[in-house]
Amino acid sequence: MFQLHPQLAKDSFPILNLPLSTVILMNDARFPWIILVPERPNLVDLHDLKHDDYNALTREIRGASKAMAALFTADKMNVATLGNMVPQLHIHIIARYRNDAAWPAPVWGKGVAEPYETTAAEARINDIRVALQGL
Amino acid sequence: MFQLHPQLAKDSFPILNLPLSTVILMNDARFPWIILVPERPNLVDLHDLKHDDYNALTREIRGASKAMAALFTADKMNVATLGNMVPQLHIHIIARYRNDAAWPAPVWGKGVAEPYETTAAEARINDIRVALQGL
Repeated sequence: MFQLHPQLAKDSFPILNLPLSTVILMNDARFPWIILVPERPNLVDLHDLKHDDYNALTREIRGASKAMAALFTADKMNVATLGNMVPQLHIHIIARYRNDAAWPAPVWGKGVAEPYETTAAEARINDIRVALQGL
Repeated sequence: MFQLHPQLAKDSFPILNLPLSTVILMNDARFPWIILVPERPNLVDLHDLKHDDYNALTREIRGASKAMAALFTADKMNVATLGNMVPQLHIHIIARYRNDAAWPAPVWGKGVAEPYETTAAEARINDIRVALQGL
């Protein structure tokens, strides 16, 4: 049975569920940063997904990347699955700006996460939920 | 017309061409690290690809990730498109080990690239070409 990895749960807020993936917001106000987690047990690498699930995931990645780019008028989207820290397969989708806190480096391990204020988190979650609904 | 970005060309060796992407080996012997570059002009983000090309790319990513994992008996595959430095859309596929030079951090910006010896580069390119042929 699928269960969100406790580390991912701890670092994030739930946004919505897509047909395959649960979508969470990383609790780091420096970056508009969501994560897609396919709701299947025991996945580690991208190619572990069965064909239909892989196609569903890549469809959701495309839609989420496009929606996040538009919502945040990003300069560049970063899309990545690393999983060196948290083994459960999860896909980062991050809207980047040329003047953000890590540019041009990747966001991982750069500085310290800045947790959202409660109202800022609620507003961002709501904006993203609206943008991703129906994917 | 598509042309490989000069920075990517400078940092890598050509391996082979898949139906959509040209595949190159990063000239850093610390990591088995290839890059897929869809041979289409003016792409920046993943969602810029037209539907058919997107499906072709995700198929090539899946096949390349699986082949690299098997060839290098990787502990984990890292798959990412960042493009903060080189704007031309390109997808990193990296075989990672729990004892490699950057683990558990991502490879980008960690230490200094170690160029391959000529014979080591030739051997690695040949191994990967064989593993990816027919994708």
